[in-house]
This record gives sequence, structure tokens and C-alpha cells, in this order.
Amino acid sequence: MNSFGRCFHITIFGESHASNVGVVVSGVPAGLPLKPDDFSEDLNRRRPGEAGTTARTETDTPSFMSGVFNGRATGAPVAISFQNQNTRSKDYAFTREIPRPGHADWTAYKKYGGFNDYRGGGQFSGRLTVGLVAAGVIAKKMIRPAAVNAGLAEAGGSRDIDAAVRNAYRENDSIGGLIECRVQDLPAGLGEPFFDSVESCISRMVFAIPGIKGIEFGSGFACSRMHGSECNDRIISREGQTASNHAGGINGGITSGNDLVFRAAVRPTASISKTQKTVNMQTGELQTLAVKGRHDTCIALRMPVIIEAAAAVVLADFMLQAQEIKRIWEDI
Amino acid sequence: MNSFGRCFHITIFGESHASNVGVVVSGVPAGLPLKPDDFSEDLNRRRPGEAGTTARTETDTPSFMSGVFNGRATGAPVAISFQNQNTRSKDYAFTREIPRPGHADWTAYKKYGGFNDYRGGGQFSGRLTVGLVAAGVIAKKMIRPAAVNAGLAEAGGSRDIDAAVRNAYRENDSIGGLIECRVQDLPAGLGEPFFDSVESCISRMVFAIPGIKGIEFGSGFACSRMHGSECNDRIISREGQTASNHAGGINGGITSGNDLVFRAAVRPTASISKTQKTVNMQTGELQTLAVKGRHDTCIALRMPVIIEAAAAVVLADFMLQAQEIKRIWEDI
Amino acid sequence: MNSFGRCFHITIFGESHASNVGVVVSGVPAGLPLKPDDFSEDLNRRRPGEAGTTARTETDTPSFMSGVFNGRATGAPVAISFQNQNTRSKDYAFTREIPRPGHADWTAYKKYGGFNDYRGGGQFSGRLTVGLVAAGVIAKKMIRPAAVNAGLAEAGGSRDIDAAVRNAYRENDSIGGLIECRVQDLPAGLGEPFFDSVESCISRMVFAIPGIKGIEFGSGFACSRMHGSECNDRIISREGQTASNHAGGINGGITSGNDLVFRAAVRPTASISKTQKTVNMQTGELQTLAVKGRHDTCIALRMPVIIEAAAAVVLADFMLQAQEIKRIWEDI
Amino acid sequence: MNSFGRCFHITIFGESHASNVGVVVSGVPAGLPLKPDDFSEDLNRRRPGEAGTTARTETDTPSFMSGVFNGRATGAPVAISFQNQNTRSKDYAFTREIPRPGHADWTAYKKYGGFNDYRGGGQFSGRLTVGLVAAGVIAKKMIRPAAVNAGLAEAGGSRDIDAAVRNAYRENDSIGGLIECRVQDLPAGLGEPFFDSVESCISRMVFAIPGIKGIEFGSGFACSRMHGSECNDRIISREGQTASNHAGGINGGITSGNDLVFRAAVRPTASISKTQKTVNMQTGELQTLAVKGRHDTCIALRMPVIIEAAAAVVLADFMLQAQEIKRIWEDI
Repeated sequence: MNSFGRCFHITIFGESHASNVGVVVSGVPAGLPLKPDDFSEDLNRRRPGEAGTTARTETDTPSFMSGVFNGRATGAPVAISFQNQNTRSKDYAFTREIPRPGHADWTAYKKYGGFNDYRGGGQFSGRLTVGLVAAGVIAKKMIRPAAVNAGLAEAGGSRDIDAAVRNAYRENDSIGGLIECRVQDLPAGLGEPFFDSVESCISRMVFAIPGIKGIEFGSGFACSRMHGSECNDRIISREGQTASNHAGGINGGITSGNDLVFRAAVRPTASISKTQKTVNMQTGELQTLAVKGRHDTCIALRMPVIIEAAAAVVLADFMLQAQEIKRIWEDI
Repeated sequence: MNSFGRCFHITIFGESHASNVGVVVSGVPAGLPLKPDDFSEDLNRRRPGEAGTTARTETDTPSFMSGVFNGRATGAPVAISFQNQNTRSKDYAFTREIPRPGHADWTAYKKYGGFNDYRGGGQFSGRLTVGLVAAGVIAKKMIRPAAVNAGLAEAGGSRDIDAAVRNAYRENDSIGGLIECRVQDLPAGLGEPFFDSVESCISRMVFAIPGIKGIEFGSGFACSRMHGSECNDRIISREGQTASNHAGGINGGITSGNDLVFRAAVRPTASISKTQKTVNMQTGELQTLAVKGRHDTCIALRMPVIIEAAAAVVLADFMLQAQEIKRIWEDI
Repeated sequence: MNSFGRCFHITIFGESHASNVGVVVSGVPAGLPLKPDDFSEDLNRRRPGEAGTTARTETDTPSFMSGVFNGRATGAPVAISFQNQNTRSKDYAFTREIPRPGHADWTAYKKYGGFNDYRGGGQFSGRLTVGLVAAGVIAKKMIRPAAVNAGLAEAGGSRDIDAAVRNAYRENDSIGGLIECRVQDLPAGLGEPFFDSVESCISRMVFAIPGIKGIEFGSGFACSRMHGSECNDRIISREGQTASNHAGGINGGITSGNDLVFRAAVRPTASISKTQKTVNMQTGELQTLAVKGRHDTCIALRMPVIIEAAAAVVLADFMLQAQEIKRIWEDI
Repeated sequence: MNSFGRCFHITIFGESHASNVGVVVSGVPAGLPLKPDDFSEDLNRRRPGEAGTTARTETDTPSFMSGVFNGRATGAPVAISFQNQNTRSKDYAFTREIPRPGHADWTAYKKYGGFNDYRGGGQFSGRLTVGLVAAGVIAKKMIRPAAVNAGLAEAGGSRDIDAAVRNAYRENDSIGGLIECRVQDLPAGLGEPFFDSVESCISRMVFAIPGIKGIEFGSGFACSRMHGSECNDRIISREGQTASNHAGGINGGITSGNDLVFRAAVRPTASISKTQKTVNMQTGELQTLAVKGRHDTCIALRMPVIIEAAAAVVLADFMLQAQEIKRIWEDI
């Protein structure tokens, strides 16, 4: 349900306007250095602030409830909570009756019989990804020297991302985006055939992030339009290095040691100030809605660090299973 | 590892040239009618035979090892095996040394230290999907009246699929394809937020199928290029029906009752008769390779029924969790 | 690792002297009434206070971090934390070097390479059972009208429990005890053959509680000394009622509708003021140790409510799987 | 459901009178030598034959469906099936209506709505343990040099086991027994606190075996009658060696490197020739029953090897998680 992983196991919790969001991480090797400062960079990357992101701002200071002692992991589950602040619940009172198009308001109402916390999207909020980013910080340390880097490749189909966001903002609208993620210096041999293939596990995790509608590995959808003679990556060394990387660093679900590459498609922010048509769930009457409140013009702007965390968490789990974790931090 | 599912649980086994492939399925409701004939249609759809598919043919007759008695499921795990026949192991002796580009030969060698069964791709073979299709037959019965239908939308980027396959065959090459899958009459409310979202679970399962490189739900990658005002599906009834279906029938990871729609990108068959460059894993020498033997020009031709099985297995699991299974067969 | 359950899923976290202990519970049906007061009775039963229990006292007020809104479960994971208070960490400084006999000090040191939080037993502390009791409160509500009741049957082998505890206290020693647990009004048909038998799941959960050394169902070990004609429970009604209950309400791993009965053996508190022999882990020198600080003379005194929680959590999971949860609270 | 394990994962299948029973084992390290002969000794120990065991005999020849090539594990799931032979289904026709006291006939009927395969106990039969023993053979190889040995300590409460069995047989009755299992040369540090403690995982697995009613570790139930000063094992070396072993080699759920010791209580065979009282499930009429057919006087006689397999499977999983598997077989 809200848990992921076999040997590196994370459990997330929280709702947008509940008192906290957070994560419990087990499988963290005892001795791994973990200090609050280690989390600042990634948490800041996820936080709004720039043009095109929501005005809801929170300090997102991690509170270690357990699992860390004297600046190092103890081997016990690392439980981290974050306070929700700056919530404006009144902005969301209408969602109890009027589902926002593109949001989970209707499905949540249906699934939970109206008992769900409708404020700010409840557990369907992107706010929950704070815990995922925190878990990602831990995972990134564990998989070193492998390095995960994601960036926004396009917004609204354009590579001039600033302009695309500005235009959408001016129109009281929102736009989607495309994230590309690359993992370098991964060992070969991670992953399992079939249900625990690298693609299976990364895609499961990436689709857990609200707003993702597609994922492709290597040349992805373009492969479906290729000939085999073009798509097959020529092997150029005994160590499995290939001349091209249409496979995205994975063959048969297993890492090949070439760069792991994938792209994720992010839908436009569902909340827009423009007037939209919807229905009243209680009365069945059709009506219009302009979503007030604070929202991102382009949620994809804040996504790269979340995608990195998703990839790192999956890879940390594979490495624990494959016994590849180097306890290099013991020498620190 | 080789298992999937929480309440509807499948375990696959087999290797291309081992004596058997098969599947163990638990969570099948006692009383569900299960006869060998029920499996024929889907197994035949997966079998080669048409132009563009391999000449290796097997009867693929399911052998029920347990779980079925007097034509109905007993409640015990349904274990089904299939004999491997018509294997030509000698065709594959070279793969012990010379990895085929685009195949898992190199990663398998690396992961298993050379002990893997290299014949016919071992456990990485598409042959393993026989068990998945068999599980899909059971799942499809369980999720009724919901109906899963997949088809080949493009081959090699073209909608004239016959011509595309013919051309590639003529060139001793192979081509990829695009599968579209649609599930109708699904109840709303299936799936969980985050790691067990409908997209997370379906994508995990679909990427378990050898040769898949991308997946998108609803308008998928196109969403990344849209504005919110376009992408948001207008809700037009209290029952959650929407005017468009960019979301692909899923909001917040939960089914909305609208058609569930996704597309999967299939890479070209990796084995081609054309000469390719690769390396000898033992000596490190570069060399050329033309893959003899029998192979599909377009594996995507045989994929729709496998994709259907993948979707049905995931949905059967969600339905058991959500208590949506209607035991309509008890009235048969 | 620190998680349990298929459809009713709990994750515990915390360490004795970390800032918090707690639990994340998923699978709680939306709409279930949950108020802080609901937790008081069971948490108080677990808390020390009576003669024979430790002087470390904490208020154990549950803080709902998420999953509860307007006094009812929202369907999101219910995350509950408890502050650790009244810790006296200095009392435990020695355990970094000198393992207490009967405790996990040595194994924790070995497993975590000395990075474990040695204060108060770290994550091995009985303090962690606070979260389990909280999960049990939720589970008990879910399984109604089934009722779980456990009590202390013996302490130190005696049924005069007060006297046994008093004597041990006087001798600066500790004693073990025997807990009996009975679940009434359970539906028949819960549990699965083999690895998820009722005995398998309850025993797994009960042995998670620090200090448990044995468990038996029905007549348990006495069955091993019986004849079949004595041990077999005569079936006296079509509904499966039996004249005796040597089976403890379980046949083939499945509940029969007769009372579910099991007993758990609790070892004596490992910490005693009496002088004991041990070793210095750093130097290897043998030495003596008298454990100062506050400890229970008989931890079994506080165990019944923990055992009840263990049973209730397992049964709630089975009921969700078997679709037996009656949403009676919706009528409240 | 019918699966167990995190990194060493087994799935069993079969029913007493279905065509096969078997097991799928994943997580077997590639390269591990596996030959049919390796299985003979343990399978023979499980087979009936001696006085006091059933006259149903089967050759129990393992058929490797996949996962083994050239006498070694390939890294793919090892799937092993056994044919059911010498079944006499007619002997069991009555169980469709008349549940045998002490058996799962009634609970199976209730749980599966009458669709279960009632012949020979269906999936509740001890016949299913053949697959477990086969998995145990693999696990025992993996955990070397640790060695698991179990034996029958008592039958019917007596240490003169032959006499006890003979007497029960003469009376057309059956008797229970007590199995003791000891694992030597285990590394310290295996297991996790709480739900995956060594006791939790072993007890879950042992209670999966039909007929087990109790388990205790180390001094077990006797601990509940001890004082702490007696029960605490004095630590006598830096390596954690203890002078006594009341803890059974486990502290805080983690192995200490001392011998792992547990005992399991086996109920008497439920099938007896003596006349018993039961009920007709269809009509509700009370009636008498004398179970004809072939049955063990004392199933505990055949249990030691099954208990060994249970322990070995759990320990192999722990070792894979702890990266303790020594690939010594690579040198063979």
C-alpha cells in the first residue's frame, strides 16, 4: 500500500493538511552518516519558490524521530517527520462537493465514501513527496559512487522553458513537462528478470509520484518505430560497454553498466485559475469552477529532485539485494 | 523476484530450453470454472504462426498440476505447466561466448557468473510469457464484466502493419511496435495512492514482459505538451464520467470508472539475420554475428494478448483487495 | 523488516531513547471512528505503574500525524507518534561496552557494528510495543464483534501471582510468566493453509514482542503427549462447533469458529539488580554487573494488552482479506 | 499465501490427489551444484516406510522443471515437481459430507464453499511437505557450514518411542510427539528486531507444517517459570559465547552465534481407525466414523526432516539478506 522495497524499505505517511508528512526508512546500513544538513539541498530543490511554483512555502525541516544517533544511522528504522505549515484549509472547503477536473477529488470521494480529508488533496497531494525526497537523500548516499541526476528537458513541449511557463502563467493556465533522469557509474547486474526488472521497479516508483503519465527507458517509444539493426546497441567491450544506448542501460531487466536513462512525462498542474466545467457530487448539478488558491504553473519544475529520489530508492534496494553497497562511509 | 501480487498472487518459472515453463496462481476463488479449453484462445493468440513470427511452434497445452477439480478452482494454488518442445539448443551454443546485441546475454552472463542457461535466452526468453497468458485467462474470468482488449496500433511507426512487417522481413531485419490496451466496465475506486497506484502496478507488470521500453496512460507523453485547460477532463456526471479521457481512466492512482487506457512501446526483435558487431565475452575480441535460427520479425505481433494478461492480473488483484469480485460463476 | 501485514499493514519505528516511538497503520477502513480517548484504556494497561513494574513512566499520549480527520479514519495511513519522556540515558552508558546478560546488547553490537543506539536497549526495547498497542486499538475496532482477551495465567510458575512477584522483587531478581489469550465470536474460514496459517501469522507477530520464548495453540505441547482419540475434537454441529477445543479454534490453519486460544511464555526481565557475570566487549575481560536503573520485576504483568494487540492486528488483516469486516461503525 | 521469504523465496503447490505437488524456489545462487541424488536422503527420511507410518508409498523422484543446467543452479527459479502416485481417492469420498475430527475437512468446506478437493485432505495434506523438504535440501547447501539437525525427542510423552508407537497402533489409535531441532555453526547477527526476528520467521514457517501445535526456543515455556538470575545466560567471551543457552541462541530476535535450539509439538495423527463422533455437514445429523485407509500412527516420526527444512529455508533467507552466503561451492 504505502510501502515500497524489499531490503531497503520505505513507508510514507501524511496528508496535505494533517499535522505531518513523513517517511519511515528501514534497511539503512548502521553507521551511514546522516545529519539534518544532508537533507537541505534536495528538500530545497523540491520546495516552491521560483517563478512558476506555488506560493505555499514551508521550511521542511526534517525531524528525526528515530534511527539516528550521534550523526549516524543506528540500524533501526529512520523515521522522519515534517510539519505541515502555511496550510489554508478554507481554500479547499468546496472540494468536498465540487471535484476539480484532473484531480483525485472524485476518485477519493468514491473510494473512501466521503471520509477522506479533502483539504489540499489529502494524501493525494504532491506534499507527500517530501518524505520521498528525504528517503532519496539516504538512498543517494548508499548507492555511491553511482550518481543520479535529473533535469527538466521540456515544458509544454518547448525547450525554452522559461518562456513556456511565463506564457501559461499569463493565460491563467498551466503546462506539463518532460523530465530526463540519468544514473552514472552503476554496477552491472542489478535487477531481476520479470516482475523485479529495473524498469518494473523504477516505473512502479515513478508512477507513485502524483502527475506522472508516462515513462520510457533509453530510446523508449522511439524504439517502437525503429528497425532492430538500428535499435540494437553494438557491444564494444568485454565489460559490456555499448556504442549507442537505445536500451537505456538495461537488458533483460538487468543493468548493463552503461548509463541508466529514462524520461517521465508530467501532466500540467490540474489546478488552474481558468474557469472549468465540473459537477456537484452531492446534487449532480453541472457547474463551473475557477480554482483559487496557490498552485504551481508547472509542477514539472519541482519534479527533477523527486524523480532522482525515486530512482535512488529503487537502486539502493537492488544494491542491498545484490550486496553491492560499499560501506565506504565507515572510513569517513 | 518471480512473484507478483498481494491477494491474487502469481509465480512464474521456466527457461526457454528447460523441460517446462509455467505459473503458480494463488488467490483464485474456489468454484471458478476452469477447463483446459478456456485457455486455448489466448494461448493460440500468443503462439507464433502468422507471417512475421518465429517458426518455433509448440502446442502449449496447459497441464494442471493442482488447484482444479471437477472443472472448477478448488481454492488451492492453481499450478500450470507447459512442456517446452521443438527446442533447437544447438542454435544457441554461441551465446555462451558471443552476446547478441539487444539481448540479455551479456547481463545474464555477468549477473549469474556464467552459470545461466544460455540456450534460447534462458529465463529471459519471451517463452516465459506463456505462464503469464495462462494467469491472464484466469484473471479475465475473475474481473468480469470488465473486459480487457489490446491490439497492435503501429508496427515500425506505421499503421500499415502488414507492409511494415513484410519490408523488415525482406531486409533480414526486425521492427518494433506499439500496443494499445483498453479496459471497459471497470468499477471506480480500484488502486491505492502512491506505490500501489493503478499506473504503478500495471507498469511494473508490463515492464516484466521482455521487449517493452515505454508505457503511457491516457494521453501520456502528449500530456507533457498540453496546457491544463486542455488536459483536465471535464466531469459530466455525478458518477464521474468525463467528456474526454486524457487521464486514461485513472486519477490519483485510482480508477474513475472511465475506460482504462494505456499504450506500451515494444522494441524490435533483437535477433536479426543481418550482420551485427559484438564482442567475445571470453576473449574480448570484437567480432561480427548474424543470428541464425528462428525468430519473429516483429514480436509486437504476439504481444497484445500478453499485455491483456498483464492488465487483467493486476486488476484481479485490485478487485480482490477491494472486494469487488462478483462470484457470478456460482450461478453457472 | 519492521512491517507486518498484507491488507492491514503496520510499520513500527522508534528507539527507547530517541525522540519518538510510533506506528504507521494502513488499510484502516475510511470512516472508522478514531479518537485519542479510544486509545487510553489499552495504553494505560501497557504502562508501568503497578507493583512489579518499572518506575519509568510516560504519559503515552498518541499524536495523530495523519489519517484521522473529524474523528474518523480518512483512508490514508494512520500515523501515530509518542514522545519518549523520562529517559535516563546515563543509566545505560555502560551497555556500550558491557552487554547485559539476557539482553540484545551483544547481538545489537555485533549486527550494527557498534553504531546502534545502546541507550535503553535502542530499538530492542519493550518501549516499541507502544506502537503495537496503538495499532491493536484500531484492529480491535475493526474485528468487532470478535473480542480478544488476554490475561496473566501464571508468574514464575505460580498462579499466586502477587506473591510470586513480591518474592522476586525482594530477592532483587525477576520472574517470567505465562499469558493466555482467547478470541471469541470469530468467523470461521479465516487464514490460509501453510505460510499464512492462523498459527503462522499469530506466532510471527507474538514472537516480535521482546521477551516471548514460546507459543502454543489450543492444548499445544500437551497434544504431543496425547492419543488421537483424546486430542481430536468431536464435531457436534453443522456449524463446526466442537465438544472440546484441543485445536484452539484452528484446523488446517483456518479458524473453525470455535474460540481461538493460545498461550505465550514470557521470559523473566533480563535486567536485574542482582550481580551477574558478563564480559567487556571492547577488552574481552570478564566482569560482574548489577543492572541499576528502573526495571520491571515481571514484564509479563504488562504483556496481556500487547498480546491482545498482536492477535487483533493479525485477525484484522485476515478479515480484510476475507472481506469479513462489517462496517458497523457507519451506523454510529 | 503459499509463498515465503524475502530474498530466498519459495512457493509451494499441490494437493494430495492432484497430479503433482511441488515447489518453486527463487534466490538460489547461480552455480550451486544441484543433482537429483542430492535430494534422495532427505526425501527418503520424509517418506513413509517404517513401522508407525502410512502404507501409501511414493517414489518421490524430483523432476526439475527449470532452474538447473549441467548440474548447477542457473539463477532462474528452481521449479521442482513430484508426481502423486498410489492415491486411493475412493477412500476419501465420505469426507465431502462427513468431516473427520481433528482434520481440516470442515474448515476447508466452509472456506472454499465445498469446491475444495476433499480427496486425501487436498492442499491440507502432509503430502505438500514434499516440496518443503526439497526446498530444504537447497537451503541446507546454501547455509553451510551451518548444520541443521532435528530428531524426535518424545512420542506420546515417552522417550521410549518404539514402545509408544507400538502401543498406539495396537489400540487403533495415534500419538503425538516432540521434535527438537538444533542448528550449529550459525553466524551471529542474523534476523531483525520485531516482525522478522529469528523466532518470528522460524515459527511462521514451522506452523505452516500440518500438525504443529506449539513451538518454543531455548528453554521456552520453562523460562516462564524461572527467575532472571537463572534464565539469563552468562556471557563468557567477547565473541558472545554463553555458559548456558536458555535463550536458544537468539537475543532480541538476532542470532548470537550460540546453537539455535527449538522444539515443536506435533499433535497425534487425526485419522484413526477407532470410532469417533462427528456430524454430516449436509444434513446436520450426528454420526460415527472410523477412518479407514492408510495413515501414520505417529506423524511425528516423519517430521524431523521437515522441521530441518523449515529452519534451513528461513536461515538461507536471512543469510542472503545478511550477505553471509559463502560461495564455497564455486571451488568444487
